[in-house]
Amino acid sequence: MERKVGIDDIAAYVPKIYVDAEDMAKARGIDPSKITKGLGIEKLSIPDAHEDAATMAAMAALEIMEKNELQPKDLDFVHVATESGPDAAKPISCYVQGMLEQVYGSGSFDHVGAPETKFACVGATYAMIDRLAYIASGWSKSRCSIVVGTDIAKYELNSSGEPTQGAAAVALLLREDPRLMVYEPEFTGFGTVDDRDFFRPIERTTAVVNGQYSVGCYLRDMRIAADAYKRNMVNHGVLKSLKDSMVEKAGLISFHSPFPKMVQYAFATFLIHDWRNLPRWEKIAKEIGPEPSREGLADVEFYVSEGYKEFRKRFAMTKEFTHEYQEKVADSLTAPSLIGNSYTASVWLGVASHFETRNGDLEAKRLGIGSYGSGSSAIVCSFIVQPEYREVAKKIGLMEQLGQRQKIPMNLYEDLHEERLGLRESVVPPKNEFALDCIGKESNDCGYRYYKYMR
Amino acid sequence: MERKVGIDDIAAYVPKIYVDAEDMAKARGIDPSKITKGLGIEKLSIPDAHEDAATMAAMAALEIMEKNELQPKDLDFVHVATESGPDAAKPISCYVQGMLEQVYGSGSFDHVGAPETKFACVGATYAMIDRLAYIASGWSKSRCSIVVGTDIAKYELNSSGEPTQGAAAVALLLREDPRLMVYEPEFTGFGTVDDRDFFRPIERTTAVVNGQYSVGCYLRDMRIAADAYKRNMVNHGVLKSLKDSMVEKAGLISFHSPFPKMVQYAFATFLIHDWRNLPRWEKIAKEIGPEPSREGLADVEFYVSEGYKEFRKRFAMTKEFTHEYQEKVADSLTAPSLIGNSYTASVWLGVASHFETRNGDLEAKRLGIGSYGSGSSAIVCSFIVQPEYREVAKKIGLMEQLGQRQKIPMNLYEDLHEERLGLRESVVPPKNEFALDCIGKESNDCGYRYYKYMR
Repeated sequence: MERKVGIDDIAAYVPKIYVDAEDMAKARGIDPSKITKGLGIEKLSIPDAHEDAATMAAMAALEIMEKNELQPKDLDFVHVATESGPDAAKPISCYVQGMLEQVYGSGSFDHVGAPETKFACVGATYAMIDRLAYIASGWSKSRCSIVVGTDIAKYELNSSGEPTQGAAAVALLLREDPRLMVYEPEFTGFGTVDDRDFFRPIERTTAVVNGQYSVGCYLRDMRIAADAYKRNMVNHGVLKSLKDSMVEKAGLISFHSPFPKMVQYAFATFLIHDWRNLPRWEKIAKEIGPEPSREGLADVEFYVSEGYKEFRKRFAMTKEFTHEYQEKVADSLTAPSLIGNSYTASVWLGVASHFETRNGDLEAKRLGIGSYGSGSSAIVCSFIVQPEYREVAKKIGLMEQLGQRQKIPMNLYEDLHEERLGLRESVVPPKNEFALDCIGKESNDCGYRYYKYMR
Repeated sequence: MERKVGIDDIAAYVPKIYVDAEDMAKARGIDPSKITKGLGIEKLSIPDAHEDAATMAAMAALEIMEKNELQPKDLDFVHVATESGPDAAKPISCYVQGMLEQVYGSGSFDHVGAPETKFACVGATYAMIDRLAYIASGWSKSRCSIVVGTDIAKYELNSSGEPTQGAAAVALLLREDPRLMVYEPEFTGFGTVDDRDFFRPIERTTAVVNGQYSVGCYLRDMRIAADAYKRNMVNHGVLKSLKDSMVEKAGLISFHSPFPKMVQYAFATFLIHDWRNLPRWEKIAKEIGPEPSREGLADVEFYVSEGYKEFRKRFAMTKEFTHEYQEKVADSLTAPSLIGNSYTASVWLGVASHFETRNGDLEAKRLGIGSYGSGSSAIVCSFIVQPEYREVAKKIGLMEQLGQRQKIPMNLYEDLHEERLGLRESVVPPKNEFALDCIGKESNDCGYRYYKYMR
């Protein structure tokens, strides 16, 4: 018998301090609306002096364990995905395990698997699928798995990437017969292309980013993955033909959000592709004109061409698009617009946002995921929201966390960014919280990061 | 119905040049037997000027595809594990995919998943289990998966790690009803402890290694994982009680080999633990004396204590140990002793060595795996050798590759080690082979590694 597996609960961790987008715009001498409207970002989460990707991951993992009264023996894996982890050989998951053992007891997690998955921002989605498959295969010897996506998106001061910075971790609790939503493995589509839109040679401390080009890669890979997803839907009889709309079948959608406006681009591109053969398209085409020709253009060139961007802009102003966007996508951006980019965590912050901000009845709705990672790969997959979701959604608590943060001025932000503050000089000193305690200086622990639960 | 999944075929790639252990010993002014006997290493694989972990992985993946006449559409995942990859954000798997597309056509792999798994030397075993679970769950839409372990073990010139260096990649072809061996998921045991025996802070280009301490961590984690494996065997009725021997149930064993002598330590420690309650132990204890007390010592302290090491040495000289070791383990070290350390690939080179060097009838034998990664985690798991293994084993071809290599002198080795040779100055210029072609220097591709199939 097929096991129904999926996401039982979600917990997020967001640093307690943030920079206001308007403050950043003023300091950089740019029009604030370029950040708030152009990118869709209102606040940027900034990790405090004692935080890194590992402490954030451990905080999210601890919260999901406490909220669900889980014991270490209930878990088969603590599996973390990141592209801003502390170590090139030892997985971040193992650092997280060590932190959790400070709370649950030394050796309490010695039965778990703890690998790290790397694939830029799509890493946590890859990890989630692998852990779900492990449960579905019947191989797991525990009740649950935890997958965490954790990242700090950090770019140079004054760079074009600076206003998209952010930081967050999301922990997913995975199990059989989950309360939140059941995964639909039969439809999942992948779209993977070896590309260089964003990469970080191992010898560099900052990534090399081609922003515009990356938008094109995102759209291209998402189309390949969506086509695969649609074919699978046809093969399983959920759609009659490839000309039917798959977006019709989804009630909610969360996309990876490097900046919220990107999600609008993505969804518009998605819909243009999905609706092209529907009867309604005739009316839309009359209103906005025909799609520009892609003749002679490679996929990415087409997606970043002025002609296509203009066309998509016109489409994004139609009431058909606006209705779909408001109905299915807009709510996913509540948290990302208050956090900034969080790489692997981003698409799951979108899911948490949906559950926390929607008042309507979500039961039995299909929730679609459009997860993208540079380099590059997209995964399009979906879940069915379960009746017990209400109970779970009530306790996600992400919005409350976001509401309790403290705004910091630009000079303090720059001090943190440039690592001018010591580990003991946090803006909000850690309390009941994991913290980076010290960094090894001896020959046998040079550069090693020691973590501690601060009571 | 339970699907039988496992390893259908294995392909290895080893650089075409090597350094002789005796040459290295002479150059470093040490007794050659310290390397050849003390470590068990005869030759050290050295990557040529055009090689890195990505080219080696692509070579192993290409070989397994060609040998089995696979097309890209036959594969669901190209999943690579490494701790010496080129990129901190983009997975090495995606670079490998790009190389394979140079042979199979642009876009031919756009349907695959391509994540990277990181957990020091145990990474490929983690990746293998996840891909097998994916097939076992029925979620795979293709016939096969490829998992590659690829690594370059490199330490400073004149350092104590230098004589253990090596380089290799191993590709595993995974599928339902495999010809080589069927996985036994029900027994798999994990042993994971947050530790700092070997790590590489992201800002460092070389790892920090505590050699002796790491030996202790290896033995501790292996014992935790073996205990879990044994409990699972008891729960499934394969063993009557925890006092029975699990090693009795295995016909062949392959351990992670940072250096072959470590495998002897590991197997002796394994056996002491496994045999402690057997009737035969009385006779052994009479011969070698009682086990030293571990009172007051933490696990790792005990395993690296002089008293325990002496005791294990005496045990390793008994005819009972020697018989088991020769029968089940020794053949796994053929390739590792001619290659050096290859991190994620090592334990799988051991499996390939077994199949290539054993003349006896292996059908229906249980092959045990003891996989270890610093940081730290061990996985103990097993497979059952299938009737069709003979056909597959005949074509592994690793021994032939090892026999065709070219020995290089120490000065040339040092030039390669210190990167004094340009990408076009390879000792054996690449032919029908993937090569690192150039490294980006512009602002938008700074440090990016471009690869090319050289005909």
